[in-house]
Amino acid sequence: MPAIQTKAAPAFHKTAETSAPGAKTLPQRYFVSPEVFAQEQRKIFSGQWTLVGHQSQIAKAGDYFISQVAGESLIVVRDKRGEIQGFYNVCRHRGSRLVENRSGHVSAIQCPYHAWTYGLDGRLVGAPHMDDVPGFDKADYPLHAVHLGLWEGFIFVNLADSPNPLPKWFATVAGKFSRWNLPALRSEKRIKYDVQANWKLIFENYSECYHCAGVHPELSKISPSDSAENDLTEGPFLGGFMRIARDKSLTMSSKACALPVGDFGNEDFRFVFYYSIFPNMLLSLHPDYVMVHQLEPQSPERTLILCDWFFHPDAFNRDDFRPDDAVEFWDMVNRQDWHVCELSQEGIGSHAYAPGPYSARESIPAAWDEYYLRQMS
Amino acid sequence: MPAIQTKAAPAFHKTAETSAPGAKTLPQRYFVSPEVFAQEQRKIFSGQWTLVGHQSQIAKAGDYFISQVAGESLIVVRDKRGEIQGFYNVCRHRGSRLVENRSGHVSAIQCPYHAWTYGLDGRLVGAPHMDDVPGFDKADYPLHAVHLGLWEGFIFVNLADSPNPLPKWFATVAGKFSRWNLPALRSEKRIKYDVQANWKLIFENYSECYHCAGVHPELSKISPSDSAENDLTEGPFLGGFMRIARDKSLTMSSKACALPVGDFGNEDFRFVFYYSIFPNMLLSLHPDYVMVHQLEPQSPERTLILCDWFFHPDAFNRDDFRPDDAVEFWDMVNRQDWHVCELSQEGIGSHAYAPGPYSARESIPAAWDEYYLRQMS
Amino acid sequence: MPAIQTKAAPAFHKTAETSAPGAKTLPQRYFVSPEVFAQEQRKIFSGQWTLVGHQSQIAKAGDYFISQVAGESLIVVRDKRGEIQGFYNVCRHRGSRLVENRSGHVSAIQCPYHAWTYGLDGRLVGAPHMDDVPGFDKADYPLHAVHLGLWEGFIFVNLADSPNPLPKWFATVAGKFSRWNLPALRSEKRIKYDVQANWKLIFENYSECYHCAGVHPELSKISPSDSAENDLTEGPFLGGFMRIARDKSLTMSSKACALPVGDFGNEDFRFVFYYSIFPNMLLSLHPDYVMVHQLEPQSPERTLILCDWFFHPDAFNRDDFRPDDAVEFWDMVNRQDWHVCELSQEGIGSHAYAPGPYSARESIPAAWDEYYLRQMS
Repeated sequence: MPAIQTKAAPAFHKTAETSAPGAKTLPQRYFVSPEVFAQEQRKIFSGQWTLVGHQSQIAKAGDYFISQVAGESLIVVRDKRGEIQGFYNVCRHRGSRLVENRSGHVSAIQCPYHAWTYGLDGRLVGAPHMDDVPGFDKADYPLHAVHLGLWEGFIFVNLADSPNPLPKWFATVAGKFSRWNLPALRSEKRIKYDVQANWKLIFENYSECYHCAGVHPELSKISPSDSAENDLTEGPFLGGFMRIARDKSLTMSSKACALPVGDFGNEDFRFVFYYSIFPNMLLSLHPDYVMVHQLEPQSPERTLILCDWFFHPDAFNRDDFRPDDAVEFWDMVNRQDWHVCELSQEGIGSHAYAPGPYSARESIPAAWDEYYLRQMS
Repeated sequence: MPAIQTKAAPAFHKTAETSAPGAKTLPQRYFVSPEVFAQEQRKIFSGQWTLVGHQSQIAKAGDYFISQVAGESLIVVRDKRGEIQGFYNVCRHRGSRLVENRSGHVSAIQCPYHAWTYGLDGRLVGAPHMDDVPGFDKADYPLHAVHLGLWEGFIFVNLADSPNPLPKWFATVAGKFSRWNLPALRSEKRIKYDVQANWKLIFENYSECYHCAGVHPELSKISPSDSAENDLTEGPFLGGFMRIARDKSLTMSSKACALPVGDFGNEDFRFVFYYSIFPNMLLSLHPDYVMVHQLEPQSPERTLILCDWFFHPDAFNRDDFRPDDAVEFWDMVNRQDWHVCELSQEGIGSHAYAPGPYSARESIPAAWDEYYLRQMS
Repeated sequence: MPAIQTKAAPAFHKTAETSAPGAKTLPQRYFVSPEVFAQEQRKIFSGQWTLVGHQSQIAKAGDYFISQVAGESLIVVRDKRGEIQGFYNVCRHRGSRLVENRSGHVSAIQCPYHAWTYGLDGRLVGAPHMDDVPGFDKADYPLHAVHLGLWEGFIFVNLADSPNPLPKWFATVAGKFSRWNLPALRSEKRIKYDVQANWKLIFENYSECYHCAGVHPELSKISPSDSAENDLTEGPFLGGFMRIARDKSLTMSSKACALPVGDFGNEDFRFVFYYSIFPNMLLSLHPDYVMVHQLEPQSPERTLILCDWFFHPDAFNRDDFRPDDAVEFWDMVNRQDWHVCELSQEGIGSHAYAPGPYSARESIPAAWDEYYLRQMS
């Protein structure tokens, strides 16, 4: 595949499948302990850049959606200047939730309890009868904001007081995904999964295809499970690519279901790229669609997963647009994965569980564990 | 309204709406901490006079109902001398629940397990085969009693060993409600609500009408939200009154739905009185009915509420008796309140929550918080 | 009944109903404390021989069932040499559950995640791609085994590292039940009950018929509640027998529902024997069937109970086989018992609960408590 090797930036050169000699799975406590979970919420989900959505979800000023990060309800809204803002969904008066719907459109944010009103930029603009309170100044009570940034069209928030700047965080993969056109894509479908497994099992599962032959017979037929090659092998961004059989696509019909998402030239670009973006994003880049999993850990033993299927904006109005062909395919594969993740969660809870040996085909799960442990130390 | 000012005892004179300067809502832990909740159960609900019902519920000897106080199941029963007794619903033999139904009529209290039998005064009167046990004396095994008293026809219990006498507790409001005829009233309807909010949010919500314009449009039309005046402004009993529009009543039809509950003379007595009786009673006195909320805190984040609508005993058999007109109205208003209480509970759980400033219209919630904090210190 | 006294081994001689003078029920913490429950799981259910099933459930090599002991999922399987083996249901690779169905037939145990394969003797026989891992040796990764033994055809496991040998444990009752033919019997029906009561309340309930007159009117009609005599009165195995009315059986129709399970000669063997086998078996021996309760404590306040009805293997194909006649009878009696156990659980949770006095008819519950306390000390 020389065509790819020259066009890809950085190069998708084949790397040796290596893992630390003797790498083993994580000890039990990382999957069951409420204390470890609380530490993760604090060190990872409250202190690092976390995916909450895509800019196309709130295209116009006043569009908003609600996201859950580290147990917090956040309002993500496009303000009147067109900028995206993030606020805690908590009134400064008596603490009420401000917004109840998962998404919608507003001209201002008004509390349903006592009608305190905030602008889309978070400033308190109305507080009935508070002028009678000596010393009360509306300027002292804006909504609590969260840091927010965009990468490739995706919206990330960071609950830390002084976060690492977003561009610095993504520096090592700057430009790497540019040909997929990610900022311009639009999601056609979202499915929400409620998985009874620790969030790390979802990452470890995503990061290897050792299980594909047995767990995903339909997938393996179109994309051979031994074709995996990795090009990001350490740090917060991990993954690589697999071959798709000639003239096929990862759909129920095995045929492409939409316009190519990006500009792949004339080549027969039959690859699928799978990357895990620490700590809560799985990015699957297909020729004809992009699938994104957004994880919301709920407890040591439960994870909510929002899965979106993105397509080229021009694809939507064409006669050959058959998004369900991809959605149904991955909904089937997703459920196969969640099932084995849930089985792992059950077994790891046993006194008989002890860390087991990773194979050479599990070098990415091993690298993911290693990066994770560094964040927790 | 001079007629009222002269008739009311004590006087419903207008008081200034004052709150401690800078009064703010309670810190987060008071709404979410299991430790605070356990402390409340011990210091407040196990040590103070708590509403369990009204004497009309058990009119005849042998009538009983079961009540939950501080996690305890209590049997409240009228004994053969006509006195009301309260007992823990626990057999002295092997600890079984004695009574399973919520209410009913018995001639004695017999354990469903081994048929130990207690009189309505709590004495053990039958214990099969126990005579064979050396030293066993039935007199040693009466039911465990709780202190019980009546105020204005309402039944209160106190789980403390040596409680403050009931008349002393209610001394400051002795006679204040006499014209409403409370001991003689009867409940026509009880609705049980399961609210996902801390019990204190229910009190704070009840204690102000700052939220009425936005939350209760139907109520505000009949009883203007800016007509509130308070006459009990500190201590365990708090509240005041609001005007009802001329010739109206707080019902779906806006018309009176029953005989007046009390003796209001010839005046057009268009007022509704709202009082919170610490720690678990809300007393709403209307011209044509009396509504009582009885709170049973279940956890920091959950409260059961029994709401009763009481009417004059002579009203029940009259053609003009339309109790549903009031019940439907307040069922609607209640649900509007529970909803904003639940929104508050959600928001207060956030790391972003901090005590917010009370307005002048929230002087009673501020006074309630102050009295509560004194009980907990 | 001299015929019985001479045939029974050891003799079912009448013993005096004695209990330690002043014996009382256990303190509250034994029924509600998570700490006590954790201690029980460790000291009793992880360290003693625990019933998991009967050998007839896995008659052929490859037959298996899953059992829950002390929160652990165990695979109980008959291997190719015909021996019964017990393994933790946990893959040595990444900890996945291996077997999902409650029972079935397999030729090997293959992990559903990455297809690691174990023989029925637990040896790892297949691990794809692991040969690439330096130093990996399949011999190092057999399934974790548990100790397992048979008594009277029933399968017991012991999670301890070096358990007391099974024959030694059962030495005091060796041969006692031989005439009931237990190893040869087969279960015709299993009912699973989910009881909201501590497991010890189930034992205490089973161990006396003081409650029968009130709780079990149908049972008492056929088997008089005052006919109970005990012949095992201390230690881990406790119980005795009760008379069955002449020509009757404990069935809905009051008639025998199957061939006699054992060899009772010509005598009119109208007795039912009730024994509790510490810590999780209740063994009820009837002339025409054997009922076994297998307890699986889930929390201080919840117990799963599997109840099986066993019959003579020759009974199954006969025209006079009416197993439902017994099943329906005991399903009714079981539910009566679970109900009073649940009432006890509720009442014991009260602050007002204190240990109460056992009667002379509750000498076996008292003996059971005494043995239990010795295991916990």
